[in-house]
Amino acid sequence: MKALVFTDKGRPTVEERPRPTMLAATDAIVKLVKTTICGTDLHILNGDVATCSTGRILGHEGTGIVEAIGANVTRFQVGDRVIISCITSCSSCEFCCRGLASHCTEGGWLLGHTIDGTQAEYVRTPHADGSLHHLVKGASEDVQVMCSDVLPTAFECGVLSGCIKPGSSVAIIGGGPVGLCVTITAQLYSPLKLIMITRDTNRLKIAKDLGATHRVSFGPNAVKEVMELTGGRGVDTVIEAAGVPGTFDLCQEIVAVGGTIANLGVHGCKVDLHLDKLWHKNIIIATSLVNTSSTGMLLKLIDSGKIKTDALLTHRFNFAEILDAYSTFGAAAQHNAVKMVINF
Amino acid sequence: MKALVFTDKGRPTVEERPRPTMLAATDAIVKLVKTTICGTDLHILNGDVATCSTGRILGHEGTGIVEAIGANVTRFQVGDRVIISCITSCSSCEFCCRGLASHCTEGGWLLGHTIDGTQAEYVRTPHADGSLHHLVKGASEDVQVMCSDVLPTAFECGVLSGCIKPGSSVAIIGGGPVGLCVTITAQLYSPLKLIMITRDTNRLKIAKDLGATHRVSFGPNAVKEVMELTGGRGVDTVIEAAGVPGTFDLCQEIVAVGGTIANLGVHGCKVDLHLDKLWHKNIIIATSLVNTSSTGMLLKLIDSGKIKTDALLTHRFNFAEILDAYSTFGAAAQHNAVKMVINF
Repeated sequence: MKALVFTDKGRPTVEERPRPTMLAATDAIVKLVKTTICGTDLHILNGDVATCSTGRILGHEGTGIVEAIGANVTRFQVGDRVIISCITSCSSCEFCCRGLASHCTEGGWLLGHTIDGTQAEYVRTPHADGSLHHLVKGASEDVQVMCSDVLPTAFECGVLSGCIKPGSSVAIIGGGPVGLCVTITAQLYSPLKLIMITRDTNRLKIAKDLGATHRVSFGPNAVKEVMELTGGRGVDTVIEAAGVPGTFDLCQEIVAVGGTIANLGVHGCKVDLHLDKLWHKNIIIATSLVNTSSTGMLLKLIDSGKIKTDALLTHRFNFAEILDAYSTFGAAAQHNAVKMVINF
Repeated sequence: MKALVFTDKGRPTVEERPRPTMLAATDAIVKLVKTTICGTDLHILNGDVATCSTGRILGHEGTGIVEAIGANVTRFQVGDRVIISCITSCSSCEFCCRGLASHCTEGGWLLGHTIDGTQAEYVRTPHADGSLHHLVKGASEDVQVMCSDVLPTAFECGVLSGCIKPGSSVAIIGGGPVGLCVTITAQLYSPLKLIMITRDTNRLKIAKDLGATHRVSFGPNAVKEVMELTGGRGVDTVIEAAGVPGTFDLCQEIVAVGGTIANLGVHGCKVDLHLDKLWHKNIIIATSLVNTSSTGMLLKLIDSGKIKTDALLTHRFNFAEILDAYSTFGAAAQHNAVKMVINF
């Protein structure tokens, strides 16, 4: 089969690979129908994710058709249409029982990281019962691909970890797919002010269309503008959705007393934490990898039309064009690209 | 009256000052009976607290007798024996209503910081109704002085912000008065492992006497020792009770997946935050200034004998000897000093 591979060339490569085979009775093999590219894939290619070795088939998002199941898989049958979760969950270890499937002792983020992923014609999904979801009927499959990762990540690591409350003020730093999905899902908790901060004017416009109440350009005036918007208090929740030291600095400057910084960015280096200014401000900083415990709920909201993500799907490719898709996503601002669907 | 003053000489000075007078109908004037010295006072003398100007009478802890009350004070009468809280609370602003008296718009940490404090024969306490507590009968006044600051700080900023739970593992970095008070109050939540980490062998012994289950010397082997004690997982809660970059580094190395770092240290400079290692670990970092919302509850626990803090009171001075008290506290390790009571 064809597969997109992380090589030491610093760029993605398409290779011919053998089809995956079952390794455990809880595995399923899924024939991919759709996949997409995540900012994390670019981080891997950039060398930011030391735990991902070269030779790895990338991708941790996708939909497909169950091709084969192990003897112990009970929730899925051959032929089922499924969403592949970015997180593998055994459903029974201590971490899974605590709601921390992201750190499942036999799972967590495996696909396209420590085992081969979904940017290939077939993928082996371990612990299929805890790691796949049935497609719902009321939404396009293109939209449902977003429930593999970006939508639950935005909701769990941004909205929930950020403690967004009715009437509160929220700033989202970073207008990438995850930042825009926070813009959408934050509204489930009815904040009063929802401020998108990014340099990209196209993303600012999309954020407005998705419900952001205010737009601020990332730059030297950002702190002043946010303070003006919040009566000098700062925001109750800051979502860090970029993953670089400069954006994390801005979080610390605009968080209000008693507020929360929720970090979603994948950071490749350490950052400065200004504890000399923050030790007495009663703030919380939360880091998180998604547990995908909200996936089922989000699918119901999509199914019912309460969440609309169609506007984020800016580009569609066939799998034969995946290298073009990477080029487009890697220069997203230039192409006005947000999220792309890759069809098999 | 005599007062201990922060001067530009880099050391505390005793000066003659006029007695404070009432400035608002919600004020009380309290004649001090006992006070104590906090690590924060040393931070002020060290120049770490830029918001405290020279000329300030220091001290934010103490007990005393109400000497005078304003027309609007309803909960206290002249002659009442009281504890002076380190936090001034108007009881009615947005922050007070949210339980964040530490950031009261008319209060917060004022005493010995932005207004004159309790290391003097008399002190003016603004918003007396929200900022004083009646002494209880079942405990010595020496012990009750600890309810001005160190005990509620340890409980609220350490135990509560650190989300200590039954059966969990806790490490406390720093064996000063606040670290030792966390050792005491953490046990209210029945953690399984309570590890004290400090360089000071005397403090390690005191921590053991107070209920710490394990002792680790702060140094190059600390990470290895904590990992051995926790089966390689790290601890669920790390309490940073020292306030220097090296101790905050250790917090990040020993916090478990899904764990919490509660910062109590007063930091004079920024620290490194290793987001490259922590972005996916689902941890929380909490900073806090005490709200003193637990003071009444802690007084009841002291009154009933459920909390015992007598062992922390290592030194007693008369107010005439306060400069000796500062010298002793400033070289606490050398004098085996923890908390000192200064009698008027």
